[in-house]
Amino acid sequence: MKQLQERIRQEGLILSDTVLKVDSFLNHQVDTELALQIGQEFKAIFGHQPITKVLTIEASGIQFAMAAGIALGVPFIYAKKKKAVTLAEAVYSAPVHSFTRQEDYLISISQKYLGPEDKVLIVDDFLATGAALVGLVDIVKQAGAELLGVGCVIEKSFQEGRSLLESQGISVHSLARIASMSPGEIHFIENSQTLEPVKESAGC
Amino acid sequence: MKQLQERIRQEGLILSDTVLKVDSFLNHQVDTELALQIGQEFKAIFGHQPITKVLTIEASGIQFAMAAGIALGVPFIYAKKKKAVTLAEAVYSAPVHSFTRQEDYLISISQKYLGPEDKVLIVDDFLATGAALVGLVDIVKQAGAELLGVGCVIEKSFQEGRSLLESQGISVHSLARIASMSPGEIHFIENSQTLEPVKESAGC
Repeated sequence: MKQLQERIRQEGLILSDTVLKVDSFLNHQVDTELALQIGQEFKAIFGHQPITKVLTIEASGIQFAMAAGIALGVPFIYAKKKKAVTLAEAVYSAPVHSFTRQEDYLISISQKYLGPEDKVLIVDDFLATGAALVGLVDIVKQAGAELLGVGCVIEKSFQEGRSLLESQGISVHSLARIASMSPGEIHFIENSQTLEPVKESAGC
Repeated sequence: MKQLQERIRQEGLILSDTVLKVDSFLNHQVDTELALQIGQEFKAIFGHQPITKVLTIEASGIQFAMAAGIALGVPFIYAKKKKAVTLAEAVYSAPVHSFTRQEDYLISISQKYLGPEDKVLIVDDFLATGAALVGLVDIVKQAGAELLGVGCVIEKSFQEGRSLLESQGISVHSLARIASMSPGEIHFIENSQTLEPVKESAGC
């Protein structure tokens, strides 16, 4: 997605070889117009399939799951990182390790909202180590639902997330794939190119 | 907002006199079509003013801030509850007490995204004790921005949130105002009616 790559070049702050800050337009302050276009792009990629629900994780996946849900005309669900006081009923849950924060947490969704009849698109802001996405995939399996694909806004292609998901036979599409970056420099992969993932432990 | 009241009657689960669960369509699974209509409703109420930014708190405010931002054609910002590893620069922050979880937390936003030139609409899913909203109001003041109003999706009018905000001269509008509730029963206030708030400490 050319427009997204341009915004990342213009506004993204590269803090290190692995940490990219895009909080001026994607995940703190959000450009609603761009978010809607991101939703349309997910529709262009995945919309030929009979998706019934979009699934993401709070908090920074919500705006993109909402945009995808708007484009596809379906509801979305966001997994919670903390059990809500009002979430008393049965949940599907999966453990996730955050490399960014160096902590483990549990993600969960109510069993009422996902079942064998559902065809799911998972959406998130970043694909890096893939840890959170693997947790969501696990939840889709527990629900007996069918996973139709994983769509991410930005992919750090030099980390292992994509290969982790693809090794499970999952269709993965990212709208901006970063081959490499360092302060002042960023290289994107066009979708026709391939890149060998490198094992790394810093995530975002 | 009639359609919202009907959905609350049909799908809302009243767990006690103070706890209402709306996670089948508002804040866990989200009806994207309804969320967009909620955004349009906020535009109808506040859109005559020159709003430059919508402000909310992660996570369950995001979908409604996004909907309001879409309707108004402006970006939104969500305050974070935890300092991000990538949020290294100066922030505005305010303490919030959660009555639901019985814990204190700090909300913060980057100083880069809010300033004296901004005219702000604050949006959230629930108005109950008003604790989180008062924290956001505090942040708007710190930024020197102008607060044009507070819009909430559901208001528990029997709690003190509204009077807390109105005592600061803030214009408060909620799309569904609950006068009272108990399992199996719910009463809404029409916007022409008034109700004396009762001091209570259970929030949502």
